[in-house]
Amino acid sequence: MQIVMIQDKIIPAEEVDPVHYDRGIFFGDGVYEVMRSYNGKLFALEEHLKRFANSLSAIQITGIEIEQLRARVLRAFEAAGIADAKIYFHVTRGSAPRDRSWDDSLEPNFFLNLSEISDNSTDRTNGIAVSTHPDWRWKRCDIKSLNLLANVLAANDAARKGCGEAILVDEAGLITEGAGSAFFAIRGKNLQTAPLTANILPSITREFTLKAARNAGLEVVEESLAVEQAVGADELLIASTTQDIVPVVKFDDKPIAGGKPGKYAALLNREFSLFTA
Amino acid sequence: MQIVMIQDKIIPAEEVDPVHYDRGIFFGDGVYEVMRSYNGKLFALEEHLKRFANSLSAIQITGIEIEQLRARVLRAFEAAGIADAKIYFHVTRGSAPRDRSWDDSLEPNFFLNLSEISDNSTDRTNGIAVSTHPDWRWKRCDIKSLNLLANVLAANDAARKGCGEAILVDEAGLITEGAGSAFFAIRGKNLQTAPLTANILPSITREFTLKAARNAGLEVVEESLAVEQAVGADELLIASTTQDIVPVVKFDDKPIAGGKPGKYAALLNREFSLFTA
Repeated sequence: MQIVMIQDKIIPAEEVDPVHYDRGIFFGDGVYEVMRSYNGKLFALEEHLKRFANSLSAIQITGIEIEQLRARVLRAFEAAGIADAKIYFHVTRGSAPRDRSWDDSLEPNFFLNLSEISDNSTDRTNGIAVSTHPDWRWKRCDIKSLNLLANVLAANDAARKGCGEAILVDEAGLITEGAGSAFFAIRGKNLQTAPLTANILPSITREFTLKAARNAGLEVVEESLAVEQAVGADELLIASTTQDIVPVVKFDDKPIAGGKPGKYAALLNREFSLFTA
Repeated sequence: MQIVMIQDKIIPAEEVDPVHYDRGIFFGDGVYEVMRSYNGKLFALEEHLKRFANSLSAIQITGIEIEQLRARVLRAFEAAGIADAKIYFHVTRGSAPRDRSWDDSLEPNFFLNLSEISDNSTDRTNGIAVSTHPDWRWKRCDIKSLNLLANVLAANDAARKGCGEAILVDEAGLITEGAGSAFFAIRGKNLQTAPLTANILPSITREFTLKAARNAGLEVVEESLAVEQAVGADELLIASTTQDIVPVVKFDDKPIAGGKPGKYAALLNREFSLFTA
């Protein structure tokens, strides 16, 4: 005998939809990706699938093939017929009675949501304000997992302050990255960003931004930035799959680059758009 | 136009059960409790509700009252008629299209599962083996949140090694706690355990164990243990809501207390049982 209660309703356990027993909800036991298309063309599909395979393997989810995932993404993209689409998908370890350790016979659950991407050209033109928040995340941020409560709390704190992104700062006062973006500073002829470690998501947009920077004649420096260095930088930028490269014009209420997007923000966005055309 | 794909099936977004849009699954944006009854009587209900209220407040979930939760737990417990029950419940911030920051108008989702508790008297009599794992959890382990992937990976690693629990070790080589339990060492006439900080769950069973220890004539020392100190301790114990106090007889393959439960394990369980009678 086992009973379940959902909101105010008591239900015999055997009548409950297995989605309520998803290990994704009990533990965040799953991994995800967000990708996009530009003008009817999926961008960096192989890079996203490769990272997703790494995430699955890092948390030992088996029983789902990358071929199968690629086919699903392509089928959904075709069915939706949206030119500029945002595609979110996750795989969890499966549904089972709640128990921390797992049974290898579990069948993974797949969920995908495809919608039109919101236009952020105003942000890219005018820049955004950001605020800092302690980096409360776990020690394996290199895995794109569903354990995102630290990101949620930071992003919401930023939104309450009227900011477009939260910039996460570790215990040593160094910036790791944004709650949902990579973070960069222009200092002289250098583009500086934190190196890839277990504390950083290997962002695909970060890779393309580094490439764009080199093409724009900047030197790439992979070294963590202290908060004071960020405040004193010539320009600051964030970058993510859904936003491309966005200039930061205010950092914890302090104006950056005179409070207006700098020249490299525009230049990098131009270089970046060559990859997505 | 928005589409969803669940496993291989494409579904128009408006036909999808909102449970698939639970922020619990997208972000682990929720908190939980596990409580139990002994012989028809709920144990430490008020303590669990109080901790749950703290968890809700720490992540700013509003719109759900503790009175309401107490009533639901009592109603489910009555309906099930299970004398020795394990009651799991969680509240998530609600269901909404995926976005890190949230809308205050969201209605929280409540889920409760009530089942018969598994008997662990063999473990309590014979003791268990444990293995260590790096503590990969986030920096707010004082919040009982649904972000449990680090616990899952550690617990599963322990299970693969034939161990009953994973003991989490921080970057300084100090033991924080078990993946799903509090951890204690008996050293001479002291019961030693990590102090309550943001890295430790304020375990209710831990409080009762400390009380039991004082009643058994032990001195309580709240100080983190290094791995080597644990290996050299007279006795080791874990404690959790669903297991009470369990002696550890092997720690990373090294026998503890000669590989047999020590005298304090039995004594503390006896003292503990006075609280639950």
